[in-house]
Amino acid sequence: MIALPEPLTALMAELGKLPGIGPRSAERLALFLVQSNAADVEQLAQTLVAARTLVQTCATCGALTARQPCAICQNPQRDGAVVCVVERPVDILMIEKSGSYRGHYHVLGGKIAPVQGVGPEDLRIQELEDRVTKTGVLEVILALGADVEGEATCFYLAKRLAGAGCQVTRLAHGLPVGSSLEFADELTLERALQGRQPMQIS
Amino acid sequence: MIALPEPLTALMAELGKLPGIGPRSAERLALFLVQSNAADVEQLAQTLVAARTLVQTCATCGALTARQPCAICQNPQRDGAVVCVVERPVDILMIEKSGSYRGHYHVLGGKIAPVQGVGPEDLRIQELEDRVTKTGVLEVILALGADVEGEATCFYLAKRLAGAGCQVTRLAHGLPVGSSLEFADELTLERALQGRQPMQIS
Repeated sequence: MIALPEPLTALMAELGKLPGIGPRSAERLALFLVQSNAADVEQLAQTLVAARTLVQTCATCGALTARQPCAICQNPQRDGAVVCVVERPVDILMIEKSGSYRGHYHVLGGKIAPVQGVGPEDLRIQELEDRVTKTGVLEVILALGADVEGEATCFYLAKRLAGAGCQVTRLAHGLPVGSSLEFADELTLERALQGRQPMQIS
Repeated sequence: MIALPEPLTALMAELGKLPGIGPRSAERLALFLVQSNAADVEQLAQTLVAARTLVQTCATCGALTARQPCAICQNPQRDGAVVCVVERPVDILMIEKSGSYRGHYHVLGGKIAPVQGVGPEDLRIQELEDRVTKTGVLEVILALGADVEGEATCFYLAKRLAGAGCQVTRLAHGLPVGSSLEFADELTLERALQGRQPMQIS
């Protein structure tokens, strides 16, 4: 068994750190790259560093952006009186893809998780409170994950924003669209029943 | 729908060019990278360029290597009288992983494929012929893919090396180990029958 050239194994190790890239994918990618056009590889490396350097988080909402403020915060057609609170910048993309939201966002940077040592002061909660009180936000929509930490964070935020003069809502729980009852867990069904809606027949 | 920051979409486009990375993987990787530690990303970019710059093909056999000649060509314990001909440098790794070969290699760089405009002069066939005649090679093992172009290239090489004084063999065709008859195609079964071996009962 020959040893692979060291720069190649180093590249495999680096690629293997990326999410969703296992040892075999890392090997295939590394072999592809060392046999690619040198200019293409140089281009990839430059794009990588440029993206990391140029893409920052918006100082207001925390979204990923190449300029301050971000495209959403500076868009006059978006409703600044509604702020949707999400965990990570990626979540904004998911909601934007749905095409059904025209307000602003606020990235918390995570959820309150005492076990992992994440307290309210580690998240962008003070910034949210300041934003709500200073810019006349009328509604804060909590769009956090529906796990234990997400629930706890929602309750914490609702209490903390109680005196700020804005309505605090959260995303509905229920059956995923296109899914059948047999794939739903008990908690989801309970929430779907609690949140039942009158049928629209017109 | 917001537009993603341009450096981010540029990175997604670059990552999407890699084999096995579809649009969703490219998006996930790009989002991960722009939110990673800047030093880690810089490190990845440098490793990438270093691998492409330092990993070259061996001037003798065409294997991937960081020095000339490669570890196999310069290893005195390997048998230089046997040369295994493969299409790509990657194929060497596959054979080495099997741990059952102790000779040298020769990378052709592809197969003869007139439809794609690849003729014998586009491959490292002259180098193979020179190697065989000058270094006293006794056996050339053809380890090319078993498709139409691979077969044609094997026949071409066998004819071309006919007067060089070496034996030309090729890998056996047959049932993959661990596979059952029902998954074998007709051609493989035909070859497996033609290449049947006496049972070893001692």
